[in-house]
Amino acid sequence: MNPEEFRQAAHELVDWIADYRLSVGDLPVRAQVQPGEVYRALATAPPEVGEPLANLIADLDQVIVPGITQMQSPRNFAWFPANASLASVLGDFTSSGLGALGITWQSAPALTEVEQVVTEWLRQLTGLSDHWKGAIHDTASTAGLVAMLAARERVTYFSEMRGGLQAEPAPLVVYTTAAAHSSVPKAVLLAGYGNDNLRYVAHDAVTFAMNPDALRTQMQADVDAGRRPAAVVATIGSTGITACDPVRAIVDVAAEFGAWVHVDAAMAGSAMLLPEYRHLFDGIDGADSICWNPHKWMGTILDCSLLYVSDVVHLTRVMATNPSYLQSSVDGEVVQFKDWGIPLGRRFRALKLWFHLRLDGAEAIRERLRRDLANAQWLAERVEAEDEWQLVAPVRLQTVCVRHVPAVIASDPDALDAHQQKWAEAITASGKVMVTPAVHDGRWMVRVSIGSETTELADVEFLWSVMRSTAFDLTV
Amino acid sequence: MNPEEFRQAAHELVDWIADYRLSVGDLPVRAQVQPGEVYRALATAPPEVGEPLANLIADLDQVIVPGITQMQSPRNFAWFPANASLASVLGDFTSSGLGALGITWQSAPALTEVEQVVTEWLRQLTGLSDHWKGAIHDTASTAGLVAMLAARERVTYFSEMRGGLQAEPAPLVVYTTAAAHSSVPKAVLLAGYGNDNLRYVAHDAVTFAMNPDALRTQMQADVDAGRRPAAVVATIGSTGITACDPVRAIVDVAAEFGAWVHVDAAMAGSAMLLPEYRHLFDGIDGADSICWNPHKWMGTILDCSLLYVSDVVHLTRVMATNPSYLQSSVDGEVVQFKDWGIPLGRRFRALKLWFHLRLDGAEAIRERLRRDLANAQWLAERVEAEDEWQLVAPVRLQTVCVRHVPAVIASDPDALDAHQQKWAEAITASGKVMVTPAVHDGRWMVRVSIGSETTELADVEFLWSVMRSTAFDLTV
Repeated sequence: MNPEEFRQAAHELVDWIADYRLSVGDLPVRAQVQPGEVYRALATAPPEVGEPLANLIADLDQVIVPGITQMQSPRNFAWFPANASLASVLGDFTSSGLGALGITWQSAPALTEVEQVVTEWLRQLTGLSDHWKGAIHDTASTAGLVAMLAARERVTYFSEMRGGLQAEPAPLVVYTTAAAHSSVPKAVLLAGYGNDNLRYVAHDAVTFAMNPDALRTQMQADVDAGRRPAAVVATIGSTGITACDPVRAIVDVAAEFGAWVHVDAAMAGSAMLLPEYRHLFDGIDGADSICWNPHKWMGTILDCSLLYVSDVVHLTRVMATNPSYLQSSVDGEVVQFKDWGIPLGRRFRALKLWFHLRLDGAEAIRERLRRDLANAQWLAERVEAEDEWQLVAPVRLQTVCVRHVPAVIASDPDALDAHQQKWAEAITASGKVMVTPAVHDGRWMVRVSIGSETTELADVEFLWSVMRSTAFDLTV
Repeated sequence: MNPEEFRQAAHELVDWIADYRLSVGDLPVRAQVQPGEVYRALATAPPEVGEPLANLIADLDQVIVPGITQMQSPRNFAWFPANASLASVLGDFTSSGLGALGITWQSAPALTEVEQVVTEWLRQLTGLSDHWKGAIHDTASTAGLVAMLAARERVTYFSEMRGGLQAEPAPLVVYTTAAAHSSVPKAVLLAGYGNDNLRYVAHDAVTFAMNPDALRTQMQADVDAGRRPAAVVATIGSTGITACDPVRAIVDVAAEFGAWVHVDAAMAGSAMLLPEYRHLFDGIDGADSICWNPHKWMGTILDCSLLYVSDVVHLTRVMATNPSYLQSSVDGEVVQFKDWGIPLGRRFRALKLWFHLRLDGAEAIRERLRRDLANAQWLAERVEAEDEWQLVAPVRLQTVCVRHVPAVIASDPDALDAHQQKWAEAITASGKVMVTPAVHDGRWMVRVSIGSETTELADVEFLWSVMRSTAFDLTV
């Protein structure tokens, strides 16, 4: 395809995308397709000869759009927001159009230096101390794995350069809580620590925040048993109930044992943009690494997860490679992001942050976050005001965790569990709205995650009316 | 930004991108900026208020485009191709526009199933056996790390679920050659094996192919010393000279020791699209994993690296997580790509392959690859025909490795080394063309990597004339 053919096709596609975004609120939120339906509709023989764009657009309309859950719908309250703000989409377009390749600074100086600019902008906008240096990773899962590897190599003083983790004499241990995201145990396992050396530290019964005294006791017990505390993963804004660990106290305890502190604020990090919410992050400047995802609530299109570290020299020593074909005369003067993470090559992902921040402006983003927080409070008040509805956890951010407790089954925990899943599935299956059931403290509840870019109070009001009518209908 | 504002801005940007692609051949190939120049031009205070698109386009013209090395230029012969074919760019646009989120099948069934469709199409197009199942990763570095983790967990029978690698009684060993990509030792180190347990097996002096007998001897020596062979990484199309390891023989040796075989064909994988080149991949169906990057020579825009595995059940057992908030009633019936790699969330990357293959068609892609192979042969013949030029290695694919050996310094290896770097830097610094110097067998050579989507014979002829005149001028 040559540039003029591209020009014509891309204009057509832009109109298709704009129309899609105009209509996304009218589509069923959760995809209504059955397993295998999309595959069977599309799995012809591999295409030998080029087709016209019209064929693909027809498939987009008939198969692809009905085949995805609408994350950009104003009535998507499932999981966490995955906003793909249109300002950031323009940055993504530009990245695709340029086709730049980030392998070294030399391969695309601007790709490297715009990433330095935007990570520095976001450091300033979030009020982090100026010793932090950030880079863009794909997801918090990857960033968390990088942190676990950096921690492993710090406590073993670069065992990777000798006999590896397998030659270490005393087991390394990682600490977190049961509220941690599933990517935390995954990272611990992939980094080679092993499940036996992952500790779920006791937490507060109501807030689910890690208990720092229990952390100290556990770490001391491990030391006494000949093990070595390697890292603590603290969560700010857990996936279940947006629980927030007390980072300052955790940093103090970890320091006693020389353990790395990684802060997983994948979801809640966006709240650091709001000075009035920074108390949740108290003490964060004492941590070793922090990850948060602009691709969630803030709305820079996936994949855009930031990992800030306090000691870049250590990180790059863990991650660096320097083959001859990537060497150049400026190596000592520039940042080489290949040595900050796992992949060698990177897209020009900084452009989506750069477009998003410059076209929308930080003030508009903060206003939107405050709207969502107010909407969550609105819903929480409604829930609390009704006899048969319960708030399962304190509403710290934009997620409201609820349970419908009809009087007739109020004393039957299993029936209540089944009921939560049933009403949640009923409203989600209708396509009108979408919410996520989840287990909290051993029992099922429903998470209402507010924060799609286009979600206004009217959408939350609509959700609340659907929640009530559906749960009521299932009870009588 | 609302959809109508987006529509207007995106149309403007599409024209800008089409114009950029029309003019990319006229731009200096290597970025002419100095370290820090882009940063200083752009690092203002974080933007509080939104700006018009015109400001960003002005910066694109004045700072970003001059600040990147033009990977899409027909005269870029550096590193390996990183083609961002415009057909695939349209798929990327669509992915960005949809803003879909792949965390589970349920979150975007079409995202999952189109990925199944395109990986199956490419399996068929590359002639791989139908037991292979593939998924898209960002890069071969990540795919290689996944393979090293899968190998580690196979030989230890899931040590991750017990005490981890650190509790393993006997050291695990990985085998590759000195020609392996830098991501191979990086993956081995990150996976915890340790540098002491990475063996560089002897290779053929001319072809640099791994010597299978040397592999067997080394593996047996390790077994005799109480160590456990865990994995062999074979390369097809090495970064330096596109060396190809004998996969069939390696598979046979590895089988004697129960070791995993990972085939890194990041660059050369595209050649599997050509039946007449499949002899390079002889025996590949006996391997455990194979990685190749459509985002290189084939030209599906970065990031698009395929990892095929022969035992998906094993891979997903190593990588799986299943928290309550990601569970659904269809889990047993569908593919969950979150369990095939490191990140939980994924973009709709399958669309760029789907657009690329459908809009261009496989036949046109094969024709382009054959054009590049013929151009490489053309250059190789010119090099061989001239007294003062040498081919450093057999031309297996589209990379031609050369050395200019002027009679006056022919007997001075250090002077020859300096000369190669000097003429390569001179032609690259001119901006007219770009090549990559690299160390091969302890001495500097220059790699001419042919295969940009728009590179025609005339561009290679131009390169050859610049190579000759520049090298000659530096000699006299």
